[in-house]
Amino acid sequence: MRWMDLAASEKHYTDVVGLRVTARRPGQVYLQAHEAQDHHCLILNAADRAGIEHTGFKVSERSDLAEAETAAKDWGLVTRRVASGEVLGQGDGLMITLPSGHVFKLFYHADKVGYSYGMQDPDIILDHVDGVSPVTHLDHALLAGNDCDKSVKFLMEALDFNLTETIVAPDGNPSAFFLTTSSTVHNLAFAPGPPNSVHHIAFYVNDRADVIRRVDMLKHKKVTTLDYGISRHGIGGVTTTYFFDPSGNRNEFQCGVYEAQTIRGSVPPIVWAGEHIPRGAFYYENAISANFFEVVT
Amino acid sequence: MRWMDLAASEKHYTDVVGLRVTARRPGQVYLQAHEAQDHHCLILNAADRAGIEHTGFKVSERSDLAEAETAAKDWGLVTRRVASGEVLGQGDGLMITLPSGHVFKLFYHADKVGYSYGMQDPDIILDHVDGVSPVTHLDHALLAGNDCDKSVKFLMEALDFNLTETIVAPDGNPSAFFLTTSSTVHNLAFAPGPPNSVHHIAFYVNDRADVIRRVDMLKHKKVTTLDYGISRHGIGGVTTTYFFDPSGNRNEFQCGVYEAQTIRGSVPPIVWAGEHIPRGAFYYENAISANFFEVVT
Amino acid sequence: MRWMDLAASEKHYTDVVGLRVTARRPGQVYLQAHEAQDHHCLILNAADRAGIEHTGFKVSERSDLAEAETAAKDWGLVTRRVASGEVLGQGDGLMITLPSGHVFKLFYHADKVGYSYGMQDPDIILDHVDGVSPVTHLDHALLAGNDCDKSVKFLMEALDFNLTETIVAPDGNPSAFFLTTSSTVHNLAFAPGPPNSVHHIAFYVNDRADVIRRVDMLKHKKVTTLDYGISRHGIGGVTTTYFFDPSGNRNEFQCGVYEAQTIRGSVPPIVWAGEHIPRGAFYYENAISANFFEVVT
Amino acid sequence: MRWMDLAASEKHYTDVVGLRVTARRPGQVYLQAHEAQDHHCLILNAADRAGIEHTGFKVSERSDLAEAETAAKDWGLVTRRVASGEVLGQGDGLMITLPSGHVFKLFYHADKVGYSYGMQDPDIILDHVDGVSPVTHLDHALLAGNDCDKSVKFLMEALDFNLTETIVAPDGNPSAFFLTTSSTVHNLAFAPGPPNSVHHIAFYVNDRADVIRRVDMLKHKKVTTLDYGISRHGIGGVTTTYFFDPSGNRNEFQCGVYEAQTIRGSVPPIVWAGEHIPRGAFYYENAISANFFEVVT
Repeated sequence: MRWMDLAASEKHYTDVVGLRVTARRPGQVYLQAHEAQDHHCLILNAADRAGIEHTGFKVSERSDLAEAETAAKDWGLVTRRVASGEVLGQGDGLMITLPSGHVFKLFYHADKVGYSYGMQDPDIILDHVDGVSPVTHLDHALLAGNDCDKSVKFLMEALDFNLTETIVAPDGNPSAFFLTTSSTVHNLAFAPGPPNSVHHIAFYVNDRADVIRRVDMLKHKKVTTLDYGISRHGIGGVTTTYFFDPSGNRNEFQCGVYEAQTIRGSVPPIVWAGEHIPRGAFYYENAISANFFEVVT
Repeated sequence: MRWMDLAASEKHYTDVVGLRVTARRPGQVYLQAHEAQDHHCLILNAADRAGIEHTGFKVSERSDLAEAETAAKDWGLVTRRVASGEVLGQGDGLMITLPSGHVFKLFYHADKVGYSYGMQDPDIILDHVDGVSPVTHLDHALLAGNDCDKSVKFLMEALDFNLTETIVAPDGNPSAFFLTTSSTVHNLAFAPGPPNSVHHIAFYVNDRADVIRRVDMLKHKKVTTLDYGISRHGIGGVTTTYFFDPSGNRNEFQCGVYEAQTIRGSVPPIVWAGEHIPRGAFYYENAISANFFEVVT
Repeated sequence: MRWMDLAASEKHYTDVVGLRVTARRPGQVYLQAHEAQDHHCLILNAADRAGIEHTGFKVSERSDLAEAETAAKDWGLVTRRVASGEVLGQGDGLMITLPSGHVFKLFYHADKVGYSYGMQDPDIILDHVDGVSPVTHLDHALLAGNDCDKSVKFLMEALDFNLTETIVAPDGNPSAFFLTTSSTVHNLAFAPGPPNSVHHIAFYVNDRADVIRRVDMLKHKKVTTLDYGISRHGIGGVTTTYFFDPSGNRNEFQCGVYEAQTIRGSVPPIVWAGEHIPRGAFYYENAISANFFEVVT
Repeated sequence: MRWMDLAASEKHYTDVVGLRVTARRPGQVYLQAHEAQDHHCLILNAADRAGIEHTGFKVSERSDLAEAETAAKDWGLVTRRVASGEVLGQGDGLMITLPSGHVFKLFYHADKVGYSYGMQDPDIILDHVDGVSPVTHLDHALLAGNDCDKSVKFLMEALDFNLTETIVAPDGNPSAFFLTTSSTVHNLAFAPGPPNSVHHIAFYVNDRADVIRRVDMLKHKKVTTLDYGISRHGIGGVTTTYFFDPSGNRNEFQCGVYEAQTIRGSVPPIVWAGEHIPRGAFYYENAISANFFEVVT
């Protein structure tokens, strides 16, 4: 992602969110959650505006890169091969510009940093950050843009993403899409918005009571948050709180799971429509606050 | 699994565990968690002894069944094709008898029952069962037997399971194995024990504080439990409690995640060895109670 | 208190709040929490409007009733002796009409109903109500009216109440008052409002995580609540949620303690003033929603 | 209390328990919880053995000291007047040697240190200690000795303590006693043991889920604990964990309340007897571990 003040951003993502720095390069900080193994889950890039550079997913087989390249070209999408090391800790990859303008990256190899507590006889309790155990992992990103339906169609048909939930607009067309490639609720989501923007990135905390503690600490540390404190999404059923990083990018802490499946085509989606859409967004308030969809970066 | 008193077992798995009945047949009750979509996650079979009949996994492509059959035969394992409908709610499948004696089933199609709250504009809060929200899904089974290492080798090499954690015995050989096919910590595990037996099946609850409430209710309802109440496994890092069904099969409620990955070969395992093995089993007690490994069914 | 539909109110206070009925009389239902011993903590009175009849406190010595009567008369307040049995389960008492118009009752004797789980070798886990353990006790009432400062002065000087927190209005005069006679944060509070009205009554739940579960269930059961879900009061530091009974009386579930003291005059108050008053009310939102002070009964 | 290594003890009570240092004197450290107002709740005294020096309670009126002195002499107990300042932050007081040998102190005045977050417009969220909010207050002490019944009789009859729970030994005589002077479950308790010893002191945490986190951190920091991790007492109904300070004094973290009352004689006790005594001690285990009553200081 892009962050305007790299030092302030690093402090936010380590002290407030609870990630660790795994590598640095001029103008870049690489971060990973403490309970994830790969080299990084987030790159902070110095830039003159906020927003997202790309989202990356790892493929199962090396040959998947070439297959994806062919498919993307068949769909008329711009692609670019990325050399090994262009992104620290990753092997060579493929950039695809989605119809919504977002850059979507695939790669096969990631260096391993291992879990923070080590891989041999670990003491599984981590030192706490601001009164709570660190987030376990980066859970998902919600991208915003035009032509999201086309991006989603490509991801599902060409790259085997599953649709777990969808919001149907008053005109009967799906407008928001929640996609997964794993057994969790969603890894990547799309909603209407300004071209090539990001609504939020979400981190997983594995205790609903931790969300209370995290809101306490966000407020105590005067981190900017959404208007209210704790809520619950109908979509995903997660207990949730939103806040902002120093560049204005929206973050989420969330907890909650249901069983999705990694098997293509075997996950019929939950459908939100009409008067129930606000409940899908905020189950407690049954309403969507004015600035919730307006603020993106 | 096999249960001796079908009515008592059904009451246990609905009222204590919090599953729903999705189908019945003479001598069989099919059960599923409220937040899972497929036809069932557990079959209660009337039998004259406790234990497990088979464990089943869904494959990604129909052609995977034939590939698995070929692989199993190459490994010298006994296989059997299963007709569609032999198990309610499932298409045709393949039974493989693993080296440890356990019957391992693969299938491609499962009927959908959907989430309990429905698939259209759901009210995502479920009525509670005994004071806590229902378990979200069947998380894993721990099988016990001889030659577990051979079963594990087959599952990893032929069927793309990943090894997330392993216990190394004093002789330097791995003795227990925790495997996953998804992004969760383990779906299937193996430990030494009597041939073709099961140590426990585990259900996921998505709040660590719920484990306190569940232990309260288990004790209040006089359900037989492990000696102590709540503990934490080093392996998986989960907050946990064990109890027994009316036939003596061990159940677990657990909560906790770290990020594993579905991609074959990309998940180096955590290794538990020597003096730290008890911590891997029970982080709080740093000890394994005498009857923990002795009681299997 | 006064409730317009007695049957609907009884259902609310038993099924939603989690009290038990301890006695009935035509037009009256007596209720008590499961983990309190005295005859009742709440009386539902059939009436043609919502609101509160009186609040009652138990005195330490029988002679305290006569002393309070003398003091009240010295303060020019109207008093009335109440015969034993006029209120079920209580001995004789004294009614004092406070300057704010609220009727304040003192009594010496209360019949004992004991804890719900009994007083001999109890099984201390109660059956749950709507997915959570019952509220432990009635914690406090917040009364609203004119001349609250005069009521508070009387309660402190004549009846040994302690002031734990106070809000100072822009004119420099205290406007809201939080009083205790025990070691908990407040038992009785006063704020500006229409004469002789009640803002809310609060019930204690002894786990902050239970507040999440209770909000889930309030929303699931379509009980009317305050605009947002869970918050935290600066005043008292409690995790909180507000909802309404069928007559429109506001209820609160709350959890949290700090150490106050029962000893008169030894508890200097926390003072909220100026720009920090909204934080005192709602720590997360740092704002007071428009209808929070307007709606009283 | 007495502690052999003052520096190690101070570190334990600040970093592990979460108290703050409010004063020092050669050989003494005074500590208070962050959410309590009086000068201290605990004094660490350098000594050559572990154990407790005295327990102190504040009286309501200055004249109570003389009344207690007279009463104690009538009961044949040794008393000693304590000058103001002999204990830092306290006015003059009275020491009474109870029949069980424990020194029981009364005082009228305590200097105020206020809550850690201040008394004016506080930011009510405290910086966390080891991943959890600090304990709210010192809750109770369990003293052990001979002739505890005589000490209890004196405290109830002469000093207005209430008995909330009691354990009746097989010979029909009460053997353990749980006493309160406030609305909480117990402030002071007595059980059989070596003369003038202390079984544990307990600190209140106001979230049951915090007990999970605290056990995680105790184990992570290698603080010595009781054999198992989290349990629940039948007595008091509290969620609990035990651990030891560097001198071997036992500490407890606990959470849970029911409604007791400050009014003398109005709190009939819960009685634990016969086969149910283990459940009263440890509700989950329904057993008392061998070393639970043997280890005192």
